[in-house]
Amino acid sequence: MPTVYVTVPTDAAEEIAATLVEERLAACVNAVDCHSTYRWDGRVETDTETILLVKTTDAGYDRLKARIEELHPYEVPCIERFDAADTLECFGSWIDDTVD
Amino acid sequence: MPTVYVTVPTDAAEEIAATLVEERLAACVNAVDCHSTYRWDGRVETDTETILLVKTTDAGYDRLKARIEELHPYEVPCIERFDAADTLECFGSWIDDTVD
Amino acid sequence: MPTVYVTVPTDAAEEIAATLVEERLAACVNAVDCHSTYRWDGRVETDTETILLVKTTDAGYDRLKARIEELHPYEVPCIERFDAADTLECFGSWIDDTVD
Repeated sequence: MPTVYVTVPTDAAEEIAATLVEERLAACVNAVDCHSTYRWDGRVETDTETILLVKTTDAGYDRLKARIEELHPYEVPCIERFDAADTLECFGSWIDDTVD
Repeated sequence: MPTVYVTVPTDAAEEIAATLVEERLAACVNAVDCHSTYRWDGRVETDTETILLVKTTDAGYDRLKARIEELHPYEVPCIERFDAADTLECFGSWIDDTVD
Repeated sequence: MPTVYVTVPTDAAEEIAATLVEERLAACVNAVDCHSTYRWDGRVETDTETILLVKTTDAGYDRLKARIEELHPYEVPCIERFDAADTLECFGSWIDDTVD
């Protein structure tokens, strides 16, 4: 099943996570604060951000991705999908039942 | 090699991680605190949890998974396996030597 | 595209991340503090570390891995590659343009 890795501004993290779960695009979101280093317009920048690890279904992934793009304040957001090679059966069933 | 992604209550994280390493089911565990948002019994809930990123071998994965289920206080625990596409050779050898 | 999972001593995290981005081996690095439990010389040890999640290209991966090995203070560093099953197109293009 997919886990979607998204980085967001820390002050937007809670609202984006709540929206994805309220709209049944995700069953759960784990939010982790991080320190980011990146190159932008030729300069090395650093910033505090939050990583969202978003749990959804194969069938729900495309709608989730489109909705994150809409909600996201960045011009070029990090949205990447990582597929689990195995998921505990009852946890997978819960995600299937929870995501529309 | 597998990295197993598990979310646990923060106050149980240290003991579960130590048990998995002491019993040679894992070579190492990286524990990261997170803020979780999820749907349960029809309501959107939030909670503080800890993500365990557990390093083991292909051969050890099934026993590790069964032991995490035993140790875990949740009815429906998040236990998911992600396979590395590449692992630094000496690190892979260390995991192989450390896990029973 | 690859995300490389590296654990480093917390006091070396910022410099390693900055070096990888300055040398155009990575487009961005997300650094997350963690608590690690591992077996070393037959004993279970715990320590505070930082996980670096390093975003690069397929073509850049081998050079990035070699450079992390050079910069890393550990004898046996955790360097593992996880491949995204999907990456938002504009984010992937940004990584392609940013990594040499």
